[in-house]
Amino acid sequence: MANPPAGGEFELIARYLSHLGAERNDVLLGVGDDAAVVRAPPGRDLALAHDTLVDGVHFPHGMPGEQVGHRALAVNLSDLAAMGARPAWALLSLTLPCGDAEWVRAFASGLDGLARKVGLAVVGGDTTSGPLTVGLSVVGWLPTGQALRRSGARAGDELWVSGWPGEAAAGLACIQSGVASQSVPLAELVERFRWPQPRLELGAALLGRASACIDLSDGLAADIGKLCQASGVAADLDGRSLPVSAALRAGAADDRQLRRWLLAGGDDYELAFTLPAGTDPAPLRAAAGCAIHRIGRIVEGAGVRLDGEPVDSASLRGYDHFLADPGRGA
Amino acid sequence: MANPPAGGEFELIARYLSHLGAERNDVLLGVGDDAAVVRAPPGRDLALAHDTLVDGVHFPHGMPGEQVGHRALAVNLSDLAAMGARPAWALLSLTLPCGDAEWVRAFASGLDGLARKVGLAVVGGDTTSGPLTVGLSVVGWLPTGQALRRSGARAGDELWVSGWPGEAAAGLACIQSGVASQSVPLAELVERFRWPQPRLELGAALLGRASACIDLSDGLAADIGKLCQASGVAADLDGRSLPVSAALRAGAADDRQLRRWLLAGGDDYELAFTLPAGTDPAPLRAAAGCAIHRIGRIVEGAGVRLDGEPVDSASLRGYDHFLADPGRGA
Repeated sequence: MANPPAGGEFELIARYLSHLGAERNDVLLGVGDDAAVVRAPPGRDLALAHDTLVDGVHFPHGMPGEQVGHRALAVNLSDLAAMGARPAWALLSLTLPCGDAEWVRAFASGLDGLARKVGLAVVGGDTTSGPLTVGLSVVGWLPTGQALRRSGARAGDELWVSGWPGEAAAGLACIQSGVASQSVPLAELVERFRWPQPRLELGAALLGRASACIDLSDGLAADIGKLCQASGVAADLDGRSLPVSAALRAGAADDRQLRRWLLAGGDDYELAFTLPAGTDPAPLRAAAGCAIHRIGRIVEGAGVRLDGEPVDSASLRGYDHFLADPGRGA
Repeated sequence: MANPPAGGEFELIARYLSHLGAERNDVLLGVGDDAAVVRAPPGRDLALAHDTLVDGVHFPHGMPGEQVGHRALAVNLSDLAAMGARPAWALLSLTLPCGDAEWVRAFASGLDGLARKVGLAVVGGDTTSGPLTVGLSVVGWLPTGQALRRSGARAGDELWVSGWPGEAAAGLACIQSGVASQSVPLAELVERFRWPQPRLELGAALLGRASACIDLSDGLAADIGKLCQASGVAADLDGRSLPVSAALRAGAADDRQLRRWLLAGGDDYELAFTLPAGTDPAPLRAAAGCAIHRIGRIVEGAGVRLDGEPVDSASLRGYDHFLADPGRGA
């Protein structure tokens, strides 16, 4: 049985966690009562998501607290981005093996920085004793009835992706093999793994434009496969259109590794989305704050093909994707 | 590093967790997308709470899945009850050491039963690999501006409590000492520990009547102490008015143990609340669905006194309250 954190240390921890994120006028009662009380604006739907990160499963054991704090929120915000939702409030559940106040201070700083940047307030949660685990529930808003879903893709739609998929997996491989900072491109990959950026601006810009959307957590092919399954369609990827960054090319030992990272690397937290044919991408490019690339199209059928050949996500994943999340959705 | 649950077993687990709780018309999109989408009614505030239960910390290792599922939801609903909120939606985070589908089936059944009873829908969450931990975020509604707070108690108010505080701690002691089913009163105590009942009806009835409210998770004296601290007042408990059930009396070895259970036993999930002097308790008694007792009054000052003597919650807690939760509010 785990021991609760010691008193003095725990008071410090409680202080670090008591005021995280933005000040918001719609928070009527924050941390400190039995529940938080907030007021949602009229005419909005609420998007609710929860992701839990377990030490050694969802992030490497020994990852600095600031990176864990940033990551825990980024992963959850990415789910809101995929719905087109604007983040508002969060509940934090932090399970700690011991009262390491300095680690918690760094964790709080990483989480707080991203929360303030996106205007989110952490309004409650709890802290418990046990193996290091970070859970966040996030709540965001949407215009009524406009949530982006996985299920809206139709044959004839264009398939797009944001950013440079595979870079996070390559960065993790760099960290694990100890070559992290040997060159500029590899350091870029490592940064991409360490500081995922949720695509909230892009998600919001996709409202009313995209027919379907999903965030990339388990790899490009696997996540597009989920979007196709939910929509009852197939995806044809065009190999020449897949975005390959100079850093990814520099980091890959060979074409096989490059392909595996690109198609099956996890933890990118980019968005894959479908646009009805002929949609003007210019407003999306202007709003996204990141590169977006057209990578293929949606057709009748099932599954994901690359240049006409079926892509087997499971066999692609290989040994270097250790951050496998057996998640079940929201 | 923990291994993800095996494929087939995990699919079973995902199925058990995909439809938990009540069907609700205000759930536009449930489990299976990046986030759930729900629609709150107009003119309501939202109450948000999260509690995490760690195996061996917040429930005894080896507790049957059905009891853990019930308990995880009951503890969270108790937080909503303390605000006067009506439960609506929840996100479930389940961390499992291995893919034990049979345990998850029982867990899901326990959670589902209570969720249906109170009309709550589990709309999302995630399942991860790691040491057994159950987190739930719950969302409920309140009439605008009416949330019950800890901070509203004023000198002159009456202090009340629901149910029979101390019974849960006595039940846990019975389980731990192996005398669980030797007699009817002891079996009653064990049931009280195993199946906590959130006081949602009472909480709703307190809206517009109570000046302050808190749920009892850490013991009567400690939780009333928190209410007093938040309100800037003191509490005078009247020893002859404290409710002592026949079962609690039967279970206690001596008066010292009885007193410790009554004042410092945790995990009761009853409500302590304050009423302006002269408030008619009849409507509360009619609505509560449980006994309520007037146990003292609120006075100027700080701290909790019993028959004029200060109560030291920390020294009372003793060795048998192992379910200590270093929580930090909501």
